[in-house]
Amino acid sequence: MAPRLLQPQPLTAAAFAPFGDVVEAGPQVRQFAINDGNTMRYHDLMHIDMAEGGHPIVSLFRGQPRVLPFCITMLERHPLGSQAFMPLNGRPYLVVVAPPAPMPDEQALQLFVARGDQGVNYARGVWHHPLLALQAVSDFLVIDYAGPGPNCDEVTLAQPWWIAAGCD
Amino acid sequence: MAPRLLQPQPLTAAAFAPFGDVVEAGPQVRQFAINDGNTMRYHDLMHIDMAEGGHPIVSLFRGQPRVLPFCITMLERHPLGSQAFMPLNGRPYLVVVAPPAPMPDEQALQLFVARGDQGVNYARGVWHHPLLALQAVSDFLVIDYAGPGPNCDEVTLAQPWWIAAGCD
Repeated sequence: MAPRLLQPQPLTAAAFAPFGDVVEAGPQVRQFAINDGNTMRYHDLMHIDMAEGGHPIVSLFRGQPRVLPFCITMLERHPLGSQAFMPLNGRPYLVVVAPPAPMPDEQALQLFVARGDQGVNYARGVWHHPLLALQAVSDFLVIDYAGPGPNCDEVTLAQPWWIAAGCD
Repeated sequence: MAPRLLQPQPLTAAAFAPFGDVVEAGPQVRQFAINDGNTMRYHDLMHIDMAEGGHPIVSLFRGQPRVLPFCITMLERHPLGSQAFMPLNGRPYLVVVAPPAPMPDEQALQLFVARGDQGVNYARGVWHHPLLALQAVSDFLVIDYAGPGPNCDEVTLAQPWWIAAGCD
């Protein structure tokens, strides 16, 4: 059987809407000048969604680059809070998600290619693959949940999906 | 009278502690491997401090670069919430702060030179100068307060302080 290949698509707010927010400074974003005109503020770009009793924390993730072709064999989700990633090195990275559901629909996986100036915020409970940095060791600012309760579910896929070389 | 010059100092967690947090992935930070060893997580790097009834929001700030020498004539503070800045372009920037007090002590201003991989989180109520990007138009991820109440106090300094050329 031929390997199952994920089809890459550009990361856009519209295409990613079922999975969460794209964090970017685009013309479509509410924006206004501050600091006496020195600075443009692109305002309130993600929905931070934490279960009651928890709170958001800020961490840095330093990811080793993935080598393509890369095999997707598992997904995870965080039932108690949204999780945001903002790249700090300006390099593109990959995002693999499945629609929110009790178990991921393995036929509905989507592969997004994020530009180095785009962040993503996974909505609470959205199935996603762990960090997929590319090209070099890459740092990301991460905003996610701290508080009571187990906040990571993992599933192994029934069959692997592949990300082809050249997606970066 | 000779112009009053601020003396630059490197941004370190210890030196900045009276003013808030330095957000960086250093050996001194609590860290652990995740994602099957692919990723190092530098954990919980700032104190998000919001007044009751408010909540943190995430925005992008796009700052025009300041040209040195630069004259500091005012400071601001946010009485209702901490405010964090994480650089997204890897360029150094400047941070001017005064110790928390009802009015800034103009003799106690401090000038920090932040590396491009260091963020800062101003503690709630800390007097600081608005964004001081350098060299080029620069983007920062910002985490600050949204909610009821006026959240920006501004003061004009009795006398200006200067940042000399060469601080970048």
